[in-house]
Amino acid sequence: MNLPPLVRSSRNLGRLLRAGRGSIGFVPTMGALHAGHLSLVRRARRENARVVVSVFVNPTQFGQREDFAKYPRDLAADRRLLAPLGPSILFAPGVGEVYPRGFDTTVRVGGSLGRVLEAAWRPGHFEGVATVVARLFALVAPRRAYFGLKDYQQFLVIRRMCLDLGLPVELVPCPTVRETDGLAMSSRNRRLDARRRFLATALVRALLASAALAGQGERSAPRLKAAGMRVLRAAPGLKVQYFEVADPETLLPLRRVRGRAMALTACTLGRVRLIDNISLMVPGHA
Amino acid sequence: MNLPPLVRSSRNLGRLLRAGRGSIGFVPTMGALHAGHLSLVRRARRENARVVVSVFVNPTQFGQREDFAKYPRDLAADRRLLAPLGPSILFAPGVGEVYPRGFDTTVRVGGSLGRVLEAAWRPGHFEGVATVVARLFALVAPRRAYFGLKDYQQFLVIRRMCLDLGLPVELVPCPTVRETDGLAMSSRNRRLDARRRFLATALVRALLASAALAGQGERSAPRLKAAGMRVLRAAPGLKVQYFEVADPETLLPLRRVRGRAMALTACTLGRVRLIDNISLMVPGHA
Repeated sequence: MNLPPLVRSSRNLGRLLRAGRGSIGFVPTMGALHAGHLSLVRRARRENARVVVSVFVNPTQFGQREDFAKYPRDLAADRRLLAPLGPSILFAPGVGEVYPRGFDTTVRVGGSLGRVLEAAWRPGHFEGVATVVARLFALVAPRRAYFGLKDYQQFLVIRRMCLDLGLPVELVPCPTVRETDGLAMSSRNRRLDARRRFLATALVRALLASAALAGQGERSAPRLKAAGMRVLRAAPGLKVQYFEVADPETLLPLRRVRGRAMALTACTLGRVRLIDNISLMVPGHA
Repeated sequence: MNLPPLVRSSRNLGRLLRAGRGSIGFVPTMGALHAGHLSLVRRARRENARVVVSVFVNPTQFGQREDFAKYPRDLAADRRLLAPLGPSILFAPGVGEVYPRGFDTTVRVGGSLGRVLEAAWRPGHFEGVATVVARLFALVAPRRAYFGLKDYQQFLVIRRMCLDLGLPVELVPCPTVRETDGLAMSSRNRRLDARRRFLATALVRALLASAALAGQGERSAPRLKAAGMRVLRAAPGLKVQYFEVADPETLLPLRRVRGRAMALTACTLGRVRLIDNISLMVPGHA
């Protein structure tokens, strides 16, 4: 179980990658790796000759009042977690490596994806995300890149960007990995104390309540939302930013569900912000 | 002298390009081709196995009060002009081909390049330019792309974008081609009546006056600007938007010229807006 080589500079990364051969699978992360990340790495490992995992807490995707400073960081632990998964390269650049002197380009995805849900609650967030992903793609030049669907809107934004700019990367969406009680894995979970850690399961229970109702044939988005909101309201101290039933492509709110829809929610527990989502399917629709 | 194949859809372009082999040289234009464009095509012809010339009047780079509707268009003439230059592909897509349904990405170059001179006078212009160039690069996938230096700031913006996003295109800057009286070639020149066509030479004469003074050792930017402004003010009806002596990389205004600098100007004659620039060199500096 060798620790993966730790590369700090984009120059050294380029050198290392040029020295090897075969398709590169890329897992961009902000570190504080958990089982969700590791499932992405395993899949990248299966589907590619080489794997690059980046750990970069990107300042430009955090708002001024957000938790950039408090975002968990533990590079040594991340490196140990990668070791048993087979050979990979751990790319942990500094800010100046990702955004060298003179760097001045921003990529923005507009339309509904750039306006609703996460975009509405975190102004500038997806510009930061799209730009850093474009930048990391430029540095890593991967054949495939792996993203967890907990960040569903992020995946849609990145997919839109790659399509529009013709970036030659195959995006691989991967299912959300959950704790045994259903809570979606997130680096932010470790910032929850025991009581809040318990209350945090309200998100997945709310989504499941909504999905169960849809499974019984309910098509009214207000009623599907109400089912979720009842669960969330029962969690003391949990604040709901949104719980929405939305079109799976545009993320625009739906009045009625015809076939597939997404339920998505964002809540805060103290200073910790959590998001989750689930796919809804009303029977009788193709 | 065969007319170049005229391709209207990105799908057909892709098909045609995949059927061939060898490096692609790309000349993006807004049509109304003149000798400046043709010099780019000739150079692309010399340096690449294949040449693609695009003709696309990009609506997103024109401001609301600008001349999008009046921008000259003559695709049949453009096609005839390309024929004697050797084989090429003429790609003249409609707006829906360049920006298909769902397209929603914008590329913005910030910093001084996104703020001064053309960026200040044409808000949103370079976002339109950067985005359409990224988009055309995605459709054409060229090895090299050719740009005339009359649009000097545009070249810097595109270079910055390619560097920052790691777009795998070699940018080839090409010298401004001029009429016999020095006027920089521009599709907009054909919108000038005879009197204004004569007055338009004030731009290049102003730039040359400034360059001549620099050549005599003058390092004061205000004095170099004054020399140019005297020429521009002598042209009746010509309105100066800017005449600036600027750093060749950042385009920030200089107080003193140390080594190389650029003089850049934008003026209007009636409703026609003209730009030009020249490199300044003060002797005794490396």
